[in-house]
Amino acid sequence: MASENAEFLAKWHRLVQERDLVALEKILAEDVTMGAPPYWDKLKGRTVVGHLLGLIIRTIEDFTYHREWHADSRGEGEIALEFRGHLGELKLQGIDLISLNDRGELQNLDVMIRPMNALSALRDIVAPQMLEFLRKNAV
Amino acid sequence: MASENAEFLAKWHRLVQERDLVALEKILAEDVTMGAPPYWDKLKGRTVVGHLLGLIIRTIEDFTYHREWHADSRGEGEIALEFRGHLGELKLQGIDLISLNDRGELQNLDVMIRPMNALSALRDIVAPQMLEFLRKNAV
Repeated sequence: MASENAEFLAKWHRLVQERDLVALEKILAEDVTMGAPPYWDKLKGRTVVGHLLGLIIRTIEDFTYHREWHADSRGEGEIALEFRGHLGELKLQGIDLISLNDRGELQNLDVMIRPMNALSALRDIVAPQMLEFLRKNAV
Repeated sequence: MASENAEFLAKWHRLVQERDLVALEKILAEDVTMGAPPYWDKLKGRTVVGHLLGLIIRTIEDFTYHREWHADSRGEGEIALEFRGHLGELKLQGIDLISLNDRGELQNLDVMIRPMNALSALRDIVAPQMLEFLRKNAV
């Protein structure tokens, strides 16, 4: 594993585990982009992406990371992390595709979740809160 | 990259590219399992999983692979592959989480797709065909 990846992951796992969303936001690039599971267009910016990450992590019950993969060819800065959890009785499995920048910050994150009933339930909880946040902060 | 992974991927990419679904089925373990994007319960068995893979690959337009990751800790036999494509105007991005067995065959495949409108459209096309196949073959 490239040392850049290892350093980022040590921070990431600790901050997610501790639900320390203030510190988590600081390891996002200022112009970070995120492809959320339900939508195609990317969200942009540290504040917006940080807020959405917080909502997802707090909404999925028993959110825990499992398998981990690293890019082979380009080597540094490309990581895939599997997570699992549930929403009530709806079990889910997801993936974080993480790209780091030269400074070791999260530059792009694409998130996918299966199955569809859990994804749909997650969206129904998170999307209204996210819209409210965007409206209040006019970002 | 572990040689087992490299050998599998060389075959996999060639067979997917050529849409050679007969040969593709042969590199699935006989008791292969697959977590399809819309459902939680796994599909089981070479014939069933092979058929679903064929339907997915043929239904997604311009289906192509992009980034590739390998497991670091356990090393061999754990691969993540990103694919992209579209259904008409609906763009999509997905991930194949591949676990190989000792014989280098595909033992488990979990597939996730974003965004939700493309996933939903894919399911609406594939699910009825898959049900028809299961009914006819009584598997």
